[in-house]
Amino acid sequence: MFRIGVDVGGTNIAAGLVDDSYEIVRKLSVKTRDAGSVDAMIKTIADMVKELMSAEMLSASHIEAIGVGVPGTADLETGKVLYANNLGFENVEFLGALKTALGKELSDKLHFDNDANAAAIGEYITGGYDADSFVMVTIGTGIGGGIIINGKVLRGCNYAAAEFGHMAIDIDGIDCNCGRKGCYEDYASATALVEQAWEIMNTAAGRSSSLWRKAETKEALDGEKFFEAVREKDACALIVLNNYCYYLSEGLTNIINILQPEILVLSGGITKAADLFLYSVKEKVSRDVYSRDSSKNTKIMIAKGTSDAGDVGVIGAALIDKM
Amino acid sequence: MFRIGVDVGGTNIAAGLVDDSYEIVRKLSVKTRDAGSVDAMIKTIADMVKELMSAEMLSASHIEAIGVGVPGTADLETGKVLYANNLGFENVEFLGALKTALGKELSDKLHFDNDANAAAIGEYITGGYDADSFVMVTIGTGIGGGIIINGKVLRGCNYAAAEFGHMAIDIDGIDCNCGRKGCYEDYASATALVEQAWEIMNTAAGRSSSLWRKAETKEALDGEKFFEAVREKDACALIVLNNYCYYLSEGLTNIINILQPEILVLSGGITKAADLFLYSVKEKVSRDVYSRDSSKNTKIMIAKGTSDAGDVGVIGAALIDKM
Repeated sequence: MFRIGVDVGGTNIAAGLVDDSYEIVRKLSVKTRDAGSVDAMIKTIADMVKELMSAEMLSASHIEAIGVGVPGTADLETGKVLYANNLGFENVEFLGALKTALGKELSDKLHFDNDANAAAIGEYITGGYDADSFVMVTIGTGIGGGIIINGKVLRGCNYAAAEFGHMAIDIDGIDCNCGRKGCYEDYASATALVEQAWEIMNTAAGRSSSLWRKAETKEALDGEKFFEAVREKDACALIVLNNYCYYLSEGLTNIINILQPEILVLSGGITKAADLFLYSVKEKVSRDVYSRDSSKNTKIMIAKGTSDAGDVGVIGAALIDKM
Repeated sequence: MFRIGVDVGGTNIAAGLVDDSYEIVRKLSVKTRDAGSVDAMIKTIADMVKELMSAEMLSASHIEAIGVGVPGTADLETGKVLYANNLGFENVEFLGALKTALGKELSDKLHFDNDANAAAIGEYITGGYDADSFVMVTIGTGIGGGIIINGKVLRGCNYAAAEFGHMAIDIDGIDCNCGRKGCYEDYASATALVEQAWEIMNTAAGRSSSLWRKAETKEALDGEKFFEAVREKDACALIVLNNYCYYLSEGLTNIINILQPEILVLSGGITKAADLFLYSVKEKVSRDVYSRDSSKNTKIMIAKGTSDAGDVGVIGAALIDKM
């Protein structure tokens, strides 16, 4: 039997045929913006599913489940996508429309969920974590994540749980786009890291930073260039990283003090440079967490799927119905 | 069949015989400090259990389970109490010693847990909440709580989950006794409320506050006196309450953004005055939470067991093995 997973991202829609050992045997990708309107996007997803099947000469009876991860709040009760900022979706009838587009034989096999939940499912299952409680914190433009407890995703009463990025860590701090102040993602997302680097570059001391040779505008700066400068031991980048680790750790400690998961996995592009910050983050968190037996503390690790994060999202989507 | 619950508090050890409808049919209480050392306290608990049974002429065969809630980290794997600040316990062999003291016939029926978990179990079961996800936030000297998901207490990998009080909401803020800065309980516990009132009483504007007629020292001030002043519309108390609601709401919003529980129950002494602050807290939280369908948002309510909070702890302890 096979499964099909579709990861609807802001940039690409990736679909994959997944075998019984949870490996992708065939994949497809289209640019999200080429898909057009909601209706056109739903048709595109259905076409991708059918194309994967026909390329391998599979019929509906070969398909155990089809899952779609969407970058927004997926209301499993009504089948609506309540809000997906990246796609410009708001309160869209998603599941029903996609079932119709897939046709009767496939429609019963369809499931959907938030993409961060799908990614957490993918990482949890393919990573072979043997843990009753598992948290994934994804550091990107914002900070999102997924919580898995006793083999089930914690979706919450309104399917919006695990919004770690919108935990205030500094209630008089930076204005957040959610309307609050001092949310975690305003301090510890990749966007925040770039912001912090740009700020120090523009001080008197920052004029001599090697970051200026890598990026002359904030828009040209990214995590990769920032960590290059850290590797070159640029003083300015090192100071920023030191502060950033502080912020990152504060939020992780909060999450751990609430959930005490066995495993906390960090994912997202910047974890490629984890060798430059993971040790210091672990050290601070282990000093700060509220627990008495450090031998049993949460293990913090980097997502195994980071090298091809898209694959984890596709595999996780294919496995939504299992969790 | 009956159950026996024991709630070991910093002030009293309360024990109760609980019937099939989860009501206390007989109870006993002794001062914790009269119990003395760890060994003496364990003997006291065993004696209380036996006294409840003999008073009702019950034998071991009538007892379904015995549960003890302790104010510290209860390691269910080793049977140790890792840390119970109020009792001066650190890494105490609790479960084994109590089993020995209870004797062979009762020892298999014994369970223990953290007291905040026991109270959450008691509130959840006796309150008749029909919820897949339930959070209790207890506001007292500090802020603690319990998390129940799919009918199970979330204890965490080291039995220290739900430490809501030690979630930093102001990372450059007040020094916390846990070593961090700006923890939630330093802003929103009953202790913090008194601290905030005392601070404003000692400003020029605070000299005329009616709070001075109720308490001339910080030690003499408590939640009850504070809320009396609020009812009298004392300007100083009203300002403090307004700020306090802000802090309380910020932490609740964080908890909701992470867990999105169906029900969030507030408990602790100050909730007796909930008519003075609950509306404003709910309003702020509902404005701030990160979700798109407000009809499905977390319901915030006051613990039903608040009128005799001790009973909920005893009943919850008696039911530990069920969750």
